[in-house]
Amino acid sequence: MTIVAPTPLRPMPALPGAYEQLELRHARLSRFDHLGAMLDWDRLVNLPVGAGASRAAALAELESLIHGLRSDPALGDLMDRAEQELLDPAQQANLREMRRQWCLGQALPADLIEARAHATVACELAWRQRRSADGGRGDWTGYLPLWQEVVRLARIEAAYLSDALGLRPYDALMQRFEPGMTTAELERLFSNLRGWLPGLLRAARQRQAGWPIDPDEPADVDREAQLRLHRDVMAWLGFDFERGRLDESAHPCTAGVPDDVRLTTRLSPGRVIDNLLATIHETGHALYEQHLPVRWRSQPVGRARSMAIHESQSLLFEMQLTRHPAVIAELSKRLTTHLGAHPAWGPEALQRRLLRLSAGLIRTEADEISYPAHVMLRYEIERDLIEGRIEPRDVPALWDEKVVAYLDADPRTQPGSGPMQDVHWSEGLFGYFPCYAVGAVAAAQWMAAMRCQLPLDDALAAGDLSPLRGWLDRSIWSQASQIGTVELIQQASGAELDARHYKMHLERRYL
Amino acid sequence: MTIVAPTPLRPMPALPGAYEQLELRHARLSRFDHLGAMLDWDRLVNLPVGAGASRAAALAELESLIHGLRSDPALGDLMDRAEQELLDPAQQANLREMRRQWCLGQALPADLIEARAHATVACELAWRQRRSADGGRGDWTGYLPLWQEVVRLARIEAAYLSDALGLRPYDALMQRFEPGMTTAELERLFSNLRGWLPGLLRAARQRQAGWPIDPDEPADVDREAQLRLHRDVMAWLGFDFERGRLDESAHPCTAGVPDDVRLTTRLSPGRVIDNLLATIHETGHALYEQHLPVRWRSQPVGRARSMAIHESQSLLFEMQLTRHPAVIAELSKRLTTHLGAHPAWGPEALQRRLLRLSAGLIRTEADEISYPAHVMLRYEIERDLIEGRIEPRDVPALWDEKVVAYLDADPRTQPGSGPMQDVHWSEGLFGYFPCYAVGAVAAAQWMAAMRCQLPLDDALAAGDLSPLRGWLDRSIWSQASQIGTVELIQQASGAELDARHYKMHLERRYL
Repeated sequence: MTIVAPTPLRPMPALPGAYEQLELRHARLSRFDHLGAMLDWDRLVNLPVGAGASRAAALAELESLIHGLRSDPALGDLMDRAEQELLDPAQQANLREMRRQWCLGQALPADLIEARAHATVACELAWRQRRSADGGRGDWTGYLPLWQEVVRLARIEAAYLSDALGLRPYDALMQRFEPGMTTAELERLFSNLRGWLPGLLRAARQRQAGWPIDPDEPADVDREAQLRLHRDVMAWLGFDFERGRLDESAHPCTAGVPDDVRLTTRLSPGRVIDNLLATIHETGHALYEQHLPVRWRSQPVGRARSMAIHESQSLLFEMQLTRHPAVIAELSKRLTTHLGAHPAWGPEALQRRLLRLSAGLIRTEADEISYPAHVMLRYEIERDLIEGRIEPRDVPALWDEKVVAYLDADPRTQPGSGPMQDVHWSEGLFGYFPCYAVGAVAAAQWMAAMRCQLPLDDALAAGDLSPLRGWLDRSIWSQASQIGTVELIQQASGAELDARHYKMHLERRYL
Repeated sequence: MTIVAPTPLRPMPALPGAYEQLELRHARLSRFDHLGAMLDWDRLVNLPVGAGASRAAALAELESLIHGLRSDPALGDLMDRAEQELLDPAQQANLREMRRQWCLGQALPADLIEARAHATVACELAWRQRRSADGGRGDWTGYLPLWQEVVRLARIEAAYLSDALGLRPYDALMQRFEPGMTTAELERLFSNLRGWLPGLLRAARQRQAGWPIDPDEPADVDREAQLRLHRDVMAWLGFDFERGRLDESAHPCTAGVPDDVRLTTRLSPGRVIDNLLATIHETGHALYEQHLPVRWRSQPVGRARSMAIHESQSLLFEMQLTRHPAVIAELSKRLTTHLGAHPAWGPEALQRRLLRLSAGLIRTEADEISYPAHVMLRYEIERDLIEGRIEPRDVPALWDEKVVAYLDADPRTQPGSGPMQDVHWSEGLFGYFPCYAVGAVAAAQWMAAMRCQLPLDDALAAGDLSPLRGWLDRSIWSQASQIGTVELIQQASGAELDARHYKMHLERRYL
C-alpha cells in the first residue's frame, strides 16, 4: 500500500496593495453573490410550498454573511488607502462602485437584512399560491398580513437609507436600482409624458378603429413545442445556451449570473404570443448580462450599470424590435415552423396583434403607448406607501381608482389584472418600477442613435441582428459600470435622456 | 412625509452554555449546508456546460466557509466543556456526532477542500457531456485527465484522514459515508456472499430458462405522461410533494434537504420500467429524509444514520417491495392508467420482467441477485485505486476483466455499461459503493423483522403501505443518528447484520 504524502497545494501569495486587497475581497463577495443569485432563481422556479421557512432561514444566513462582507468597516480604510494608489481609470471606476455599494450596505443593520429575507421569501410564496385565487383577482386577504411585514421592513430600510444618503425615503430606496435617480427627475419625465401620451393614444386608437378583431389563439398548444419555439427565438436574438437556460416561473424574470443566466418565462395556456413576448423581453436582459466584460466579472464595476439601463435593453427587444415589420415577419415564420400554421400568427394578423392598442390591464402584456401609464400608477402607489401616506390595506381600492384614471378601463373586467399581477412588491423591490419607464424612453433613444450610425433597417430586413448587437455591445453592454447612467446615455447617443425620441418613435409607428 | 424610526428588531439573547453554543453554531452550519445541498442539486440538474468554472469557484468558496466552521478549533474547547454539562441522551448523542464531524473536518486542510470542489465540478460536467459518446461507451480519453485530478485529490484526502483516524486510506474514506465500516468487515460480508450467490444465481436462472421473452416497451412514451406516472407512484409510496420535487438528471439521485427533497430520475426513451425503478429507488431515500425528526433538523444527530442505512431504504423500496406480487399488480395498474394498456406492463409480463435475472451490465438496472456483484467489482477497483495499486488509466481494462469474472458477461455488448455508467467516481465519492451491498443485506433483514412483527403481506395485498412506513419510521427514520449503525440494526431487527435474511429472501423469491 502506497500512502501519498500530503503536500501543500499552492504557494503563499505575496502581500497585496490596498486596491488589490479590495479586488480580492470583492471577488470573494461575488462568489457568495453567485450562490445567492442561483438560489433566488431556484426559489422562484422550484421551491415547494412547504420549504419556505427553511429556505428563508438559509437565505437569511447567506444574506447576513454577504451584508457583513459588503459593509465591513475595514473596507473603508482600504478604500481610503487605495485612493492614494496609482490606479488606471477602470480601477478608479471600480473603486467608486465599491464605495457606492459599501455606503448602501453600511447604512443597514444586519438584523434588518435577516428579517427582510424571511419576510420576502414567505411573501413571494404566498403571492405565488394566492395570486390566482378568486377567478384571477387573487386572495388579497390571505396575502395582506405577509405583505404588511414586507412593507414594514421596507419602510425601516428606507428610513435608514434616507438618513445615510440624505435623500427622501423613496428616493433612497431607488438608489438600490438606479444610482442618482430622484423623484424630482421622475416627476419631470412623467409630466412630459402626461403632456402628450393621452392625446397620442387617442389618435392612434382612432386609426385602429376599423381593424378586424384578432383571431383566437389555439387553446391547447403543446408545452414542449412552445419551449422549443422560445429557445429558437432566444438563440436567434443571440442568447448563449452554453451559459444559460430557459425555465418556467410564475413571473418572467432574468436571474442567475453572467456565466449562467437563468431566464424564466410563462407558458400560460391560450397565450402563445404574450408568452413569447415575455421571453423576448427577458432575452434583452439576458444579452446584457451575458455580454458584461469577462475581465471585470467579479468586481462591482463589471456589473450592469443600473436597472433603468437594464430595462432599456429588455424593452428595446420587446417593444422596439418585436414590433418592427421585419422582426414580425421573422417571428411569424418561426411560430409557424414550431407550432404549425395558424391564423393568429399569419404575418398580417401578427402585425396587427402586436401593434394593437389593447386597453389591457396587465403591465407585462401592455402595448407600447400605454406602458408608461402602468408604470406611473405603480410608482405613485409605492412612493406613497413607503413614505407612509397610505397603508398596504388601501392599495386595492387605490389601484382600481388609478386604473380608471390612467388606463381608462374597468379594473374588474380582466382577471389577474389587480395589484397582485407583479412579483416586485412581494419581493420588497420598492423603487424598481420607475426603471421601466426610464428604460422605455432610453430604448427609443438607442434606436434613434443606431439609425443615425448604422443601416439598421436594412440589416433587420435581411434578418441580420449582428449590427444591432454590435452597437449595444460597444455602447452599453461592454461598458458595464465604468461610467454613470447620465454619461452612458450621453456617450452612447450623443445627448442626454430625452423623451422626444420616444414620442417620435410612437408617432412614426402608430400615427 | 412620515419617516418610520429605525427600531431594533429583536432583543439581545442571554449568554448560552457550551452545549447550547454548539447547537447554535451547528444550526448556522446547517443553513450553509442547505445552500450547498440545493446548489449541488442545481449543478446535477441544470448547470449549462459553460458555467462550470464560475460555479466551481462559488461552490469552493462555500465549501471553504463550511469547512472552516465545521473544523473550527474553538469547537474542540466547547465540546470539552459541554461534556461536563448535564445533557439528556439525545444531546449526548448530538455531541458525539458533532465530535465525529469535527474530527473528519479537522483532518483536512482548507486548500484541499477548495481544490476538490473545483476538480469534482469540472469532472462531473465532463462526465455528463462525454459519457454517451462512442455509441454509449463514453469518451474515456477526454474524460481521463479531469478524473485523474479527482483521484489525485482523493488520495491526498485519504492520506490525511488515514493519518487522523489511524485507519488504512480506503477505510478512512469510507468513514465519510458509513462510520465504523472497515475493509475487514466488508471482506467478511463479501466472502459470505461469494460463497452462495453464484450457485443461487445459476439455479434461479435455470428456473427461468423457459420464460417467454419480454415484450418490447413502446419507444415513444410521452415525457409528461411518464412524469405524471412517476409522481403518482411517488405519492402512493408516501413522498410529500409539499416538501420536495421530481426532476430529470443524467444520474438519478436524491439531493436537497429534508424540508425540500430534490429527487431526480432518468426518462430514457424506450425504458419506461427502468426509469420507474430508478424513481422508486430514490423515493426510498427521499422518505428517509422527509421523516427525519423535525426537532433535530439543524443538528448532526438529526441526520440520516449513514449511507448504508440510506441504501437499505432505497433498496427496500426498489428490490424488496417493487418485486412483491401485490406491488407489481399495483404498478401494472398505474402504468396502464397513465400510459395506456401495453403488453410490457400487463401484470404477468411485468412480474416476469421485474424478476428476470437479466445479465445486464448496468448497476442501477441490475436484478436482485446480481446486484452485489456490481458493487464488489466497483469496490475492488476503487479500493486499489485509492491505495495506489492501480492508476486511473488502468480502470477500463480492469473493469472489463471483472465484468467477465463477476457477471459472466461480455462488457462490450451493452452500451453505457462501462466505468462511466455511475456518477460517483466523477464526484470523488470513493468509499460509497460498499454501502449499496450492506444496504441490500440490511433491507432483507428489515423485511424479515417486519414480517415477524406485522401482518405485512396482508397489508401489501390490500395496497396499504402504512404499516410498512410506520415500522420504518419508528425503527429507522425517526432514529436519525441517535445511535450507531450496529445498535440501530440490533434495535430494529433484534439481531446483528446477517446475510442469512438476504439469502432466504432470494431463495424464497427465486427458487
